[in-house]
Amino acid sequence: MPMKPTKQTPIYQDALAYLEAARSKGLSFNMARGKPSPEQLDLAAPLLETLHASSDFIDAQGQDVRNYGSLTGIPEARALFAGLLGVGQDNVIIYGNSSLHAMYEQISRSMTHGVLGEKPWSQLAEVKWLCPVPGYDRHFAILEYFGIKMINVPLLEDGPDMDFVEKAIEDPTVKGIWCVPHYSNPTGITYSDAVVKRLAALSPKAKDFRIYWDNAYAIHHLYKEGRGELLNIYDEAKKLGNEDILYLFVSTSKISFPGAGVAAFACSTANLEQVKRQMGISTIGYDKINQLRHVKYFGSLDGLQAHIDRLADILRPKFELVDRILTENLSGIDGVRWTKPRGGYFISLEVEGKAKEVVSKCKQCGVILTPAGATYPYGKDPNNSNIRIAPTYPSLQELELACRILCAAIIVEMAEG
Amino acid sequence: MPMKPTKQTPIYQDALAYLEAARSKGLSFNMARGKPSPEQLDLAAPLLETLHASSDFIDAQGQDVRNYGSLTGIPEARALFAGLLGVGQDNVIIYGNSSLHAMYEQISRSMTHGVLGEKPWSQLAEVKWLCPVPGYDRHFAILEYFGIKMINVPLLEDGPDMDFVEKAIEDPTVKGIWCVPHYSNPTGITYSDAVVKRLAALSPKAKDFRIYWDNAYAIHHLYKEGRGELLNIYDEAKKLGNEDILYLFVSTSKISFPGAGVAAFACSTANLEQVKRQMGISTIGYDKINQLRHVKYFGSLDGLQAHIDRLADILRPKFELVDRILTENLSGIDGVRWTKPRGGYFISLEVEGKAKEVVSKCKQCGVILTPAGATYPYGKDPNNSNIRIAPTYPSLQELELACRILCAAIIVEMAEG
Repeated sequence: MPMKPTKQTPIYQDALAYLEAARSKGLSFNMARGKPSPEQLDLAAPLLETLHASSDFIDAQGQDVRNYGSLTGIPEARALFAGLLGVGQDNVIIYGNSSLHAMYEQISRSMTHGVLGEKPWSQLAEVKWLCPVPGYDRHFAILEYFGIKMINVPLLEDGPDMDFVEKAIEDPTVKGIWCVPHYSNPTGITYSDAVVKRLAALSPKAKDFRIYWDNAYAIHHLYKEGRGELLNIYDEAKKLGNEDILYLFVSTSKISFPGAGVAAFACSTANLEQVKRQMGISTIGYDKINQLRHVKYFGSLDGLQAHIDRLADILRPKFELVDRILTENLSGIDGVRWTKPRGGYFISLEVEGKAKEVVSKCKQCGVILTPAGATYPYGKDPNNSNIRIAPTYPSLQELELACRILCAAIIVEMAEG
Repeated sequence: MPMKPTKQTPIYQDALAYLEAARSKGLSFNMARGKPSPEQLDLAAPLLETLHASSDFIDAQGQDVRNYGSLTGIPEARALFAGLLGVGQDNVIIYGNSSLHAMYEQISRSMTHGVLGEKPWSQLAEVKWLCPVPGYDRHFAILEYFGIKMINVPLLEDGPDMDFVEKAIEDPTVKGIWCVPHYSNPTGITYSDAVVKRLAALSPKAKDFRIYWDNAYAIHHLYKEGRGELLNIYDEAKKLGNEDILYLFVSTSKISFPGAGVAAFACSTANLEQVKRQMGISTIGYDKINQLRHVKYFGSLDGLQAHIDRLADILRPKFELVDRILTENLSGIDGVRWTKPRGGYFISLEVEGKAKEVVSKCKQCGVILTPAGATYPYGKDPNNSNIRIAPTYPSLQELELACRILCAAIIVEMAEG
């Protein structure tokens, strides 16, 4: 039976007192971004020792990785990421230190040069984009920067509302859709096979419509059991001859080091030929020494997964702690619910009509959360409801305190209505 | 007294025989690009050992370089590159692994978003650019890609023809100029103080005109004596309140590793604020671990210079060898001359009216040179004259053989002319 706290309920008084005590302590906890903790980084630090002054720097095609060359990356790295992306090695471009940057560049190039012979988007009166919500703020920021009009698409338990998507792509000005298909940011859901198949079969009016498949949490399971496996969308699209519709992205930002990892981009041969020509203008190539470092350290897809499993031992208790504190304090409160992801980096919390106020109250008590609204295009959450919790960075002790403050803030805000 | 070889001169017969012998040997020497040799890379390889799993990864502002953050780079790296660029630390953005990429992005952003409130270039009927020639083919490729019309500017012994430049910038559609001011690519000249001062004082019609100051060979001296010092253009422009006109670029591509070095971009505070806002859309940040690696290994500007001086001991004999072979074989031949740079990466050779033919003949004998014409916009050398020699990659033995083939090819082409 859902319950609504009021100023008369004892939990309101307790919460109020708790917040006042917290405020006086001058705390400072940051749960705004999906940052790995120092312990996670320490676990990957031996990667930095895989290459020495006297190492063999010659890659599988006989090139010295310390020198210029290999625009698309060293073969070993392409092979490793092909496994992660579920495509052939020849479909992979190794892409610097940031998959976000790869996505940005694809959109930027589409603006100035168009996609496979279609008109550059900068020459069109309007360009629109499908944004499953809640979603990732940095995705939305790229579109806003380029003046691309964002359309909210409901993100359901099994992926984007496909009826909505299939209808929307009849509009020729709709040029793309963001997808974080595995342990989605922030809700943690994984797209069902049915949704993946419908996406792979999309037949948009715009020939230059692309699915931006940001598989940031491809193998980022928290549990050994019941892993949500994602259907291989590239295979599905290829069966239908529809593989040109896909741009796939992945990185080791949450495996090795954020900012010092390796990103990869995959697409069909036709897309890749265009991207290679364009990349050849903007750079001579990305950091192949770091590519080799990653290949030597992780070895294979199994090696990557084994490393993630060790990271999961650090992360799982944090996710479970958040769930425990929320359950203890917020169970049964009307308009409050949260996700229990089995992978990824975030917990998505809904506090109907009160997200802004809760985030602001938390800030006053030293707990920095992702700004309310950030998980929606233009920062506008129509229900002022979604709060993204990033539990990875703080220690367990800090996280417990931060979550207790969050719960108290929610109770106070709901009661003060 | 200039001389022109003919089919009757003995050197023609000798050259012809030399080429035929060379052709039969199936040689393969690549002097097309300015690539460091393996010996140079070995000299920098200990840089890879400066960080270990247990290193202190906290930077000068207390941030863990292994994690997200620091869009503009770690303070230590900004300080190091500020010295190299001759600006204040706050004017520096550390920019991934490629200064070319930084230049590309500045032009790309100017196309889509404009410079400091001016109209995006993609919305203009025409955009033009000043290209001192001969120059760097990758610079020209960026402009061609964006449809920017390139105007050849004579590059004199002391820099671009400033009378030409000062006149050209009265045209409001002229938005930029490429400058490789120190040991220019390919002629090796260094801009005189007078030219630097005139550039710093430019008053173009277009408010969004920028000098792209690609100081790729900032401290890349070959000799300890008679170093061509370059006047600090930022200081000169600042004296006049004209510092917004400058974008400065540099990298360690030819110091540590091409592709795995660190690049930097510097500009005025007003420019930098715009760039930071735009960069924040395209990336969370660049590889700070590699930044720290470079700071730890080189320590200071003096450390960078000391390393370059060791590299120069490898490079100097190569430049001197090329000059010796050319002098022995081509002295006094009408229409043939070459530069004797005291730094940088290239020797510029003029073979009037015969560049294409010579490069093609060399290729038949297994010597790959930069394509003729590449040092001019659109690949069009109006005199079919300039050949860029990149002597750094081959061994001394290979280089001698390649140069002898080049000389023979020139003599044959001039004689058959």
